[in-house]
Amino acid sequence: MPRYKLVIEYDGTPFFGWQFQAHGPTVQQALEDAIARFSGESVRIQGAGRTDTGVHATHQVAHVDLSRDWREDTVRDAVNAHLRPHPVAILSAAKVPEDFNARTSAVKRHYLYRIVTRRAPLTLERDHAWLVKWAVDAELMHDAAQALVGRHDFTTFRAAECQANSPVKTLERLDVERIGDEIRVFASARSFLHHQVRSIVGSLQLVGSRRWSKAELADALAARDRSRCGPLAPPGGLYLIGVDYPAQSTASSTDATA
Amino acid sequence: MPRYKLVIEYDGTPFFGWQFQAHGPTVQQALEDAIARFSGESVRIQGAGRTDTGVHATHQVAHVDLSRDWREDTVRDAVNAHLRPHPVAILSAAKVPEDFNARTSAVKRHYLYRIVTRRAPLTLERDHAWLVKWAVDAELMHDAAQALVGRHDFTTFRAAECQANSPVKTLERLDVERIGDEIRVFASARSFLHHQVRSIVGSLQLVGSRRWSKAELADALAARDRSRCGPLAPPGGLYLIGVDYPAQSTASSTDATA
Repeated sequence: MPRYKLVIEYDGTPFFGWQFQAHGPTVQQALEDAIARFSGESVRIQGAGRTDTGVHATHQVAHVDLSRDWREDTVRDAVNAHLRPHPVAILSAAKVPEDFNARTSAVKRHYLYRIVTRRAPLTLERDHAWLVKWAVDAELMHDAAQALVGRHDFTTFRAAECQANSPVKTLERLDVERIGDEIRVFASARSFLHHQVRSIVGSLQLVGSRRWSKAELADALAARDRSRCGPLAPPGGLYLIGVDYPAQSTASSTDATA
Repeated sequence: MPRYKLVIEYDGTPFFGWQFQAHGPTVQQALEDAIARFSGESVRIQGAGRTDTGVHATHQVAHVDLSRDWREDTVRDAVNAHLRPHPVAILSAAKVPEDFNARTSAVKRHYLYRIVTRRAPLTLERDHAWLVKWAVDAELMHDAAQALVGRHDFTTFRAAECQANSPVKTLERLDVERIGDEIRVFASARSFLHHQVRSIVGSLQLVGSRRWSKAELADALAARDRSRCGPLAPPGGLYLIGVDYPAQSTASSTDATA
């Protein structure tokens, strides 16, 4: 029963997030339905990151077990054909050892958050970036962000409903860059708390807007108090852009996106 | 009666093009309706480029005469408020001399065409790029494209319904670049024939796919025969990205997009 690693891209706008829910369409459900129509099997897939309602992915990873030994390109192309018209696509399918698990084998997850700073409403980027209508200083944000890098108790930047056992996480990267009127925040860690990236971005935006000092951001972290968090940044600006695995876990197969 | 120059961005997907039509929504109509709701005036606006159904703009230009001397930022913000929920936004509004005409004063128009080359369907870029599922060589395209630069009879690359008086145009720039799995074609000219950019891109794609040689593209141009054109590239990949005017025509006002 071969196991396949799937690299998946999606526009999260029409979905109630990644994970299966009774009350609305999810990316996971769209994929499971498409795989069922292709292979005739009722499967359960497991994803590396549970993106929320309206959050996008350019590189989500999931694994699935199929009873037949299909060619990798056949899995990719056939599932894509059955995914229509959902804005979900399998970029690559690759056979992996049966101990590969998209969620538990992942050693790093990478997110991008996009802010557009201008007066005019978004058109081409609507639901795909956070529109902030005032001046935001990306350098102030980047400088303040470095206080969050490393191993910390992130209770301040954690959703009330977060189910993680511990609020302690190691943030490996938190970089803020400006490109024209767009600000990009890159965050990398082995794993994240629920709403952690959007909570951090919402707070960093206060620093960039000169409403919080660098010290106030560090104090908010140290307080370990959710009420000290800035406003949650909206979901449409967030993208899961990569998931890393140990080299050997996918070594049985190349991972070309062709 | 002050005249305003408007710089406009839009997602062309839901529109039957720029220009007013009886049988469907257009960008021009959305703008005229919004201006009417803001100022109480029934106005007619004129745009620099008549984009087709499904074609986008990051920098369309139009002019409009209003009876009151509104602040420039007020025009921008108030019309934007009345444009909702259409994916159309005024990036800037600036007072200009009354002899400024968005269409006839324009000295150069700039278009971008986006091709994405990969097997998987588009999700985040659906309707916003042309998906080509096979290998395309951007360097071959760029090299062949140079034969089209300059003053030529572009009958081969002109829609049957084109209303221009002459098929002779001067193409000032036709550059092809690859960025990852995306190919970008940049085209600049004082003015273009109807479907000229999409006709050229459709033909250049044949060169990049090694179905046409560089000489065959040049021969197609020289033939001055519409039947020698490659397939028309789809509208969703095309963006009007700039319109240039002589320096003095907008000198009465700054053009900040804030």
